[in-house]
Amino acid sequence: MTHLIAIGGSDAGISAALRARELDPSTDVTVVVADEYPNFSICGIPYYFTGEVQPWQSLAHRTAADLEATGMSLRLNTFATGIDVAGQRLTVRTPDGRTEDIGYDELIVGTGALPSHAGIAGLDQLAPADGVHVIHSMGDTFALDHDLTDRQPASAIIVGAGYVGLEMAEAFITRGMTVTQLQRGPEVLSTLDPELGALVHVELTTHGVEVVTGTTVTGIEKTPAGLAVTGTRDGQPFTQTTDLALVVVGVRPNTELLELAGARLGAGRAVVVDEHMRTGLPHVWAAGDGIITHHRLLGQTYLPLGTTSHKQGRIAGENALGGNRAFAGSVGTQVVKVFDLVAARTGLHDHEAVAAGYTPATVDAAADDHKRYYPGAHPIHFRITGDTNDGRLLGAQLVGRRGTEVAKRVDTYATALYAGLTIEQITELDLSYTPPLGSPWDAVQVATQAWDAQHRLAATPV
Amino acid sequence: MTHLIAIGGSDAGISAALRARELDPSTDVTVVVADEYPNFSICGIPYYFTGEVQPWQSLAHRTAADLEATGMSLRLNTFATGIDVAGQRLTVRTPDGRTEDIGYDELIVGTGALPSHAGIAGLDQLAPADGVHVIHSMGDTFALDHDLTDRQPASAIIVGAGYVGLEMAEAFITRGMTVTQLQRGPEVLSTLDPELGALVHVELTTHGVEVVTGTTVTGIEKTPAGLAVTGTRDGQPFTQTTDLALVVVGVRPNTELLELAGARLGAGRAVVVDEHMRTGLPHVWAAGDGIITHHRLLGQTYLPLGTTSHKQGRIAGENALGGNRAFAGSVGTQVVKVFDLVAARTGLHDHEAVAAGYTPATVDAAADDHKRYYPGAHPIHFRITGDTNDGRLLGAQLVGRRGTEVAKRVDTYATALYAGLTIEQITELDLSYTPPLGSPWDAVQVATQAWDAQHRLAATPV
Repeated sequence: MTHLIAIGGSDAGISAALRARELDPSTDVTVVVADEYPNFSICGIPYYFTGEVQPWQSLAHRTAADLEATGMSLRLNTFATGIDVAGQRLTVRTPDGRTEDIGYDELIVGTGALPSHAGIAGLDQLAPADGVHVIHSMGDTFALDHDLTDRQPASAIIVGAGYVGLEMAEAFITRGMTVTQLQRGPEVLSTLDPELGALVHVELTTHGVEVVTGTTVTGIEKTPAGLAVTGTRDGQPFTQTTDLALVVVGVRPNTELLELAGARLGAGRAVVVDEHMRTGLPHVWAAGDGIITHHRLLGQTYLPLGTTSHKQGRIAGENALGGNRAFAGSVGTQVVKVFDLVAARTGLHDHEAVAAGYTPATVDAAADDHKRYYPGAHPIHFRITGDTNDGRLLGAQLVGRRGTEVAKRVDTYATALYAGLTIEQITELDLSYTPPLGSPWDAVQVATQAWDAQHRLAATPV
Repeated sequence: MTHLIAIGGSDAGISAALRARELDPSTDVTVVVADEYPNFSICGIPYYFTGEVQPWQSLAHRTAADLEATGMSLRLNTFATGIDVAGQRLTVRTPDGRTEDIGYDELIVGTGALPSHAGIAGLDQLAPADGVHVIHSMGDTFALDHDLTDRQPASAIIVGAGYVGLEMAEAFITRGMTVTQLQRGPEVLSTLDPELGALVHVELTTHGVEVVTGTTVTGIEKTPAGLAVTGTRDGQPFTQTTDLALVVVGVRPNTELLELAGARLGAGRAVVVDEHMRTGLPHVWAAGDGIITHHRLLGQTYLPLGTTSHKQGRIAGENALGGNRAFAGSVGTQVVKVFDLVAARTGLHDHEAVAAGYTPATVDAAADDHKRYYPGAHPIHFRITGDTNDGRLLGAQLVGRRGTEVAKRVDTYATALYAGLTIEQITELDLSYTPPLGSPWDAVQVATQAWDAQHRLAATPV
């Protein structure tokens, strides 16, 4: 009987454990979880703070009992500290502080990522008790929750305007707080080009968020007047005082365990694995936010996303049992709801495509989500990036009102990217149409026609 | 200067004319339109009757002035009666009843389809003035509108439960009428398997529609008590009296003009064209509901859809000017909103796949449109059909509440069908996820995993 250990209670580790149990119920599966919250939806935490998701227990994809019912063993509050690769033994610190060695036949490491501090001075000395927060685990969630309840802070500065930062801005606004969002770059949500990020910016300010772009935060300090957040804005010194600071400036791969065991680091200082999730260390596999990402357009990169972790974990679980499945690769599909707006992207931006050796061109377009004569039509704004050499789709960005099916419209582009379709082929797709929900040429095709009109008509033999 | 004539003011003819003007503004384009309503959205007519679209003029995709602004000439109320292929001349009947010959360099025929009467006795003798209606043109629309206004009928029988029949049931219910929907087959909306059609059936009855399946209507007769609709139900005689009868039992291709000119008929007695929209008659092209449909999974069939007509018309317009574009083929993607439900399908049903020589299996699945912990999650019901030989996707059917993005989720399958993806490859797709709008494995992938679990696990090397 194979003994499989998965380290990590989040997407990658649990997916691996579930897949192993599904494929071979005779496998003995142990999941080592650093806290006592296995299989929680970290992506759902902002909606706990808006009040839409209550109680916090409902954030669990599956309860511990659900997981154990599949036949896996959970070791909660257990911290993996070392791997004896040759001896196939994992060293852990148990909940009562003891050190224990556990033998394994196959090991899957899904230790994920850690919040980045982006070099902000003072962060190491400040804690939730000081009103300074990150939001990456259930522990962080409880700490923020207690602070909001205990101190009733009236103002918050959110450092960072990525997905989590924007969702938390909405949460704080919903709770009646004053919110300032500081962003290093020229526009919020840098996963979009600034042309579309600007629409998200307007949505934030419309709902009362003070957005300050071009601002690099260099320090946070506790002062009698509150937390002083300092930095530079467009080269000038910047200081603002707040009751609460939330730092959400991205993550870095949590690689310590695998590095100590001899694994190699690659893109983004994440652990290198092959498409089969092999680390190169015998019987040691890895998946999730701690490893490099195989990207269908970029090769190896680092792009931690929950969807990817699920897929990688599932593959690791299968291959650890003797399977031979390869990760098909990410295309970087992402979506976020910001108040009443939905913003999505897949594939590459123009500048990313240039850096990767493509010859891109990017075209703006707008098209209604459904026939304008039917009530409730709203425009969706697009940026389509294609290769001018071969007409292949390289990327798509979309922003539209909630209800315009932007989240699933981006999936058409994501599927096209997977299949390597040209922009012209997207125009050929047989997409669904009924007046309340689409148009004879769907909005995604109006956008590809706009690209073709600018970049491919010359090739038409007329 | 090329003189191009397009016959038909609906999707195919107008798309051809627009494309020709777009590609070569020196082309002289004349569009011959049998009525005075070019470029109206026939798919939108039911929403005129629900009251959601007012006035009727807003059903125009473009006004006559919009069309003429592109440089095309419209000849309204002008009926094409004959084609002199060798002489490249089109004979028309002008609005004042004269016969006129118009020379052309290239001719595109988009005469569309006509409502089917499905062998119902008495229909030829009954007219809108008798309370008997079809709904296929703006003329039909006005006739029904006048009848509803003048007579204020309290009850309606709708013969047929396809897209238009269901949408019109909703319209009549919205107007406070009593509606009986008669369907020949075992379940409404036969573009879905009965397992999913049953969900639509429940939605109809929930909103007060009396649905009677298994009923073949053989006659409609005017009696002192109203219109008597007669037929057989499960082999027994059936009669029901009503104030108004709407017959929406499908369409047949309108091929008379091209048949007289020597064109060949094929699938569904529609005009045969090649993928370039050539009829085989020199300088005569055709597009739209009057021609056969090239289907990526079935080869030649007859499947008239507005989306297809737009694509075919665009290709005909381009090729008539010397282009060399081929229609990529339909995959039969369709969607309909029925009250608060959305039903979609793409590709083949199991029985269609068998008939076409595939070795299909079909699996049911259900998955929430987004994470259940976030408010407003609803299940989407799926039927996935794949080929057990090679794992290739053959078809997908989806039913979910309005707002569950069913219309654009079916597009992921439609794109996969276009690209020839396997069901396993759909599970590999990098689709978008945020808790309010999706799941880490999107619902479309939960469904493909369900298919794989039943039909592909044996192939997994474990």
